Amino acid sequence: MAGTDSTRASDLAPGPAIVLVEPQLGENIGAAARAMLNCGLTEMRLVRPRDGWPNPKAFSASAGADAVLEAATVYRNTGDAIADLQTVYATTARHRDMVKPVMTPTAAAADMRGEMAAGHKVGILFGRERTGLTNPDVTRANTIITAPLNPAYSSLNLGQSVLLVAWEWLKSGDATPPVQYAAGGSFPAAHDDVRDLLEHIDRELDAAEFYRHPDQRPAMQQNLRNIFARARLTDQETRTLRGVVARMASLRRRLAKKI
Amino acid sequence: MAGTDSTRASDLAPGPAIVLVEPQLGENIGAAARAMLNCGLTEMRLVRPRDGWPNPKAFSASAGADAVLEAATVYRNTGDAIADLQTVYATTARHRDMVKPVMTPTAAAADMRGEMAAGHKVGILFGRERTGLTNPDVTRANTIITAPLNPAYSSLNLGQSVLLVAWEWLKSGDATPPVQYAAGGSFPAAHDDVRDLLEHIDRELDAAEFYRHPDQRPAMQQNLRNIFARARLTDQETRTLRGVVARMASLRRRLAKKI
Repeated sequence: MAGTDSTRASDLAPGPAIVLVEPQLGENIGAAARAMLNCGLTEMRLVRPRDGWPNPKAFSASAGADAVLEAATVYRNTGDAIADLQTVYATTARHRDMVKPVMTPTAAAADMRGEMAAGHKVGILFGRERTGLTNPDVTRANTIITAPLNPAYSSLNLGQSVLLVAWEWLKSGDATPPVQYAAGGSFPAAHDDVRDLLEHIDRELDAAEFYRHPDQRPAMQQNLRNIFARARLTDQETRTLRGVVARMASLRRRLAKKI
Repeated sequence: MAGTDSTRASDLAPGPAIVLVEPQLGENIGAAARAMLNCGLTEMRLVRPRDGWPNPKAFSASAGADAVLEAATVYRNTGDAIADLQTVYATTARHRDMVKPVMTPTAAAADMRGEMAAGHKVGILFGRERTGLTNPDVTRANTIITAPLNPAYSSLNLGQSVLLVAWEWLKSGDATPPVQYAAGGSFPAAHDDVRDLLEHIDRELDAAEFYRHPDQRPAMQQNLRNIFARARLTDQETRTLRGVVARMASLRRRLAKKI
């Protein structure tokens, strides 16, 4: 996030088609559309949705991802839905008695990038809510995708399944730095500004007779320097703290005169 | 998945606490619990849930993740909810005017692993559905987590936000091979079995006078060998195909006698 809000669905690079096979609840179709658009995917294909199409419940659950639903195409069977695709992945939570490579969502996303870079059209099959994909549908796929979830509790709902796979697709092409410096309009202080602050503190601690024994000074100075090195002060914060130290120093001097 | 079903929630290694701040809909609390347990997380903390606690709608939406909801603890404010934690992350979709590191969910998960390996107790804050976390709540956190979603459509629902972060946590400690060989009880053929099959096919093509010109043979043999190298036949499939070739060969011989 933290990006511009000007990207339109039509600006998005093409991604894999999301094929929902016999989805039952409109709410889940809407949640799938939302998850797709969150991750920049826009091509939804529906095989025999149970409650017909268009389904108003899908639109009310999509939280604004209407464009994905409006462009969705409907097919009579899985074969028709994947007829123009070169490469098909089948998502399944359970082991199938089939000889076929099984990829994690992460590995599958990388694999899809390779397929699409070669110009192949790619689709991902998701099964109906309770029972998943049939064996004939899994057989049609080139590759199985299975997420290595908690084996005691591995069933995802349809929207969440689509989110995981779409999220891995998005990440596989995303260049966001893993750790970003969120500046809030300011800039990290240069090291000499922090050093000036620390030397100011050092002088005031001496003037306030903080150290009962001079041997304590080196360890304390090192601790203070480590604290400020970790804190990564901004230039504004450095000026603020110098103001705090200066204010306390002037109070100390005034009080010292009165004694 | 494809694992044993014997893992119990109590067997799971400890993970970060999921702190839902002022969640509004019970359904979303249930979806969050489900996403947590999918990814092996069990510690849920609730700050002032709008509709009180326990909330029957959360239980009906949790699809069997009741144990997470039953163990959830409730707090009057965010400060109390994180009082015993050493390290706190705040999830937010939008830029905050604060100087604080911002990590992707992937980087944050790796960071949490480091924190927990050092014995620190970790929690992740998620805000209320419409408005997210308040600035004072984000200020309490050591680190911000922001997912680099489609900038034109970056709002996730609560259950989906929890799923993304919990999924990255799970993956950061998961050793599943990215690509697995799903054998369905059989084993890949040894190369000499495949070579025997190919030589059988070569002989039959010659006998059937497939090649109009002998120069065609080397290219065809290379093509056939590449097809079978990609297909990665199992030992059973190799035997099946030898049976197919043998049957067609015997038919050819019988027909040849009749002519």
